[in-house]
Amino acid sequence: MGATTVLTTARLELVPLDPDRDAESLHAMLGDPAMDPYGWAEPTGDVAETRERLRADLAGNGGWTWAVRLRPDDAALGAIGIFSDQGRSIRGLSWHLRRSHWGRGIMGEAAPVVVEHLLAQPGITGVEAWIDTRNLRSIGVARRAGLQEASRMARVYPDHVAQQVVMVRAAEPRDSDVVAVFPDLPVRDVEAGAEQLAHVLGLHVAFRYPDPPTMARLTVTPWAGSQGLNLVRAEGTIPPVSLTIDLGIAPDLVYERALAAGLGVDGPPVDQPWYRRTFAMVLPDGQQLRVQGPLRPERG
Amino acid sequence: MGATTVLTTARLELVPLDPDRDAESLHAMLGDPAMDPYGWAEPTGDVAETRERLRADLAGNGGWTWAVRLRPDDAALGAIGIFSDQGRSIRGLSWHLRRSHWGRGIMGEAAPVVVEHLLAQPGITGVEAWIDTRNLRSIGVARRAGLQEASRMARVYPDHVAQQVVMVRAAEPRDSDVVAVFPDLPVRDVEAGAEQLAHVLGLHVAFRYPDPPTMARLTVTPWAGSQGLNLVRAEGTIPPVSLTIDLGIAPDLVYERALAAGLGVDGPPVDQPWYRRTFAMVLPDGQQLRVQGPLRPERG
Repeated sequence: MGATTVLTTARLELVPLDPDRDAESLHAMLGDPAMDPYGWAEPTGDVAETRERLRADLAGNGGWTWAVRLRPDDAALGAIGIFSDQGRSIRGLSWHLRRSHWGRGIMGEAAPVVVEHLLAQPGITGVEAWIDTRNLRSIGVARRAGLQEASRMARVYPDHVAQQVVMVRAAEPRDSDVVAVFPDLPVRDVEAGAEQLAHVLGLHVAFRYPDPPTMARLTVTPWAGSQGLNLVRAEGTIPPVSLTIDLGIAPDLVYERALAAGLGVDGPPVDQPWYRRTFAMVLPDGQQLRVQGPLRPERG
Repeated sequence: MGATTVLTTARLELVPLDPDRDAESLHAMLGDPAMDPYGWAEPTGDVAETRERLRADLAGNGGWTWAVRLRPDDAALGAIGIFSDQGRSIRGLSWHLRRSHWGRGIMGEAAPVVVEHLLAQPGITGVEAWIDTRNLRSIGVARRAGLQEASRMARVYPDHVAQQVVMVRAAEPRDSDVVAVFPDLPVRDVEAGAEQLAHVLGLHVAFRYPDPPTMARLTVTPWAGSQGLNLVRAEGTIPPVSLTIDLGIAPDLVYERALAAGLGVDGPPVDQPWYRRTFAMVLPDGQQLRVQGPLRPERG
């Protein structure tokens, strides 16, 4: 298994990565502290460490990585392949290029042929790349390879929290049967509840209906078709509803907003073993909303 | 208000649309029955009708439409501007081009300058284009103008149902505070419930936890970060949960699947005054899920 085919483009030759052969030229990339401000890995200290890193990555991803060469040069300028992932049929894709060769469209030329090749393999139904929303170069590379934006997730760096976009491409694209799921949150005062919850959670009030409203839609983004939740007017006993609000920002920020708005809470945010930091908001009618978000950076 | 500025690109001149001046050349576009297989409007019958259509569209969109010319020719080859929308600060964008000029990158050259111009206007915080997912040319135009995929929605044609992608660009892009909302659906048997509901609704089982599971996540797409819902194991009395499943496919298809799976229903799908067709599924534990989707095509 893994990459065995040499792929070529107008300017490039992509050869299956060989840690022994490629470590020396790729050390200029993996040993460069400024190479990837959005990556997780520390720069390697020497060529031997680069070789070990390449070996470990290659073993973890099933061998699916190519070294990127600019013809006629034999030196590896970068690497592209499957990220060490969880072995589902949707595989994680990543790429890196020596800084000296940025801005020449090299990875944007390599990525389409690699993606086409991977998606033609049995057992691979899709590829996805998780890219920091500030990393416009990599988002451009993903677009050139036909990947589309599918979702957003929080991303924790050593010293800050940011967001990443999940960019995807399926081997056989198809529209999904369900486009959104909207939970109903029963409340006594839809108008006031919508304003308060939108403010505290950073949601958008997409619509209220009728006037005065018995129903309001709160959405994650201001765009048409956004996911979100409905507030619906309830009388009598309010049934308990359980739902999770997944944050792309630090839950402590929302916790502070909830306190400032006079909402109840079950206590300050707590780190959970599933790599989320959580607390619960208690609405005026007694409903509890679980709020979860990224862990705190190690260096705040 | 509206377009008053002439915009230019390498090959093009974009001039504020004038129905009197442009009707004759744009009739080759609006009168062409094959021009837009994904549009709603019937082709116009003559130049006078084209002129009236252009006037009405222009009045409805506040005057924000440009005629697209290929220099040095004075004839309008197409039009691009704000779709007659609901007057929010996010405006709907659309474009059309004479078929004789497709495939030359003309609209892909026009759209970026129009979008940049619109997003610089006070009172416009974003633009969005609703594009049939099969309309790859228009999706390409939207990408060239920096629009990104934000959501999917059903779209009803006279004789079939399809889906459209909402492509968007904000004047001041920012990551949203909330990335997803997951309702909890309490059930007695998480394992069986997850399989059954995933099958009937066309959802994906993203994960179960632990083994045997007390929780399962069902998602709308197979990609990381997808929205969806949680099934959670409940004992004793199961509290009623109210949620809406918004379909991108005909609700009658899901209704048939629910019957075949032995799920209860409150009756066959019914057209609602809010342009949705709905029914309710009754799960084995008594929970009711509202299922809503597009109306049926007029010609089935």
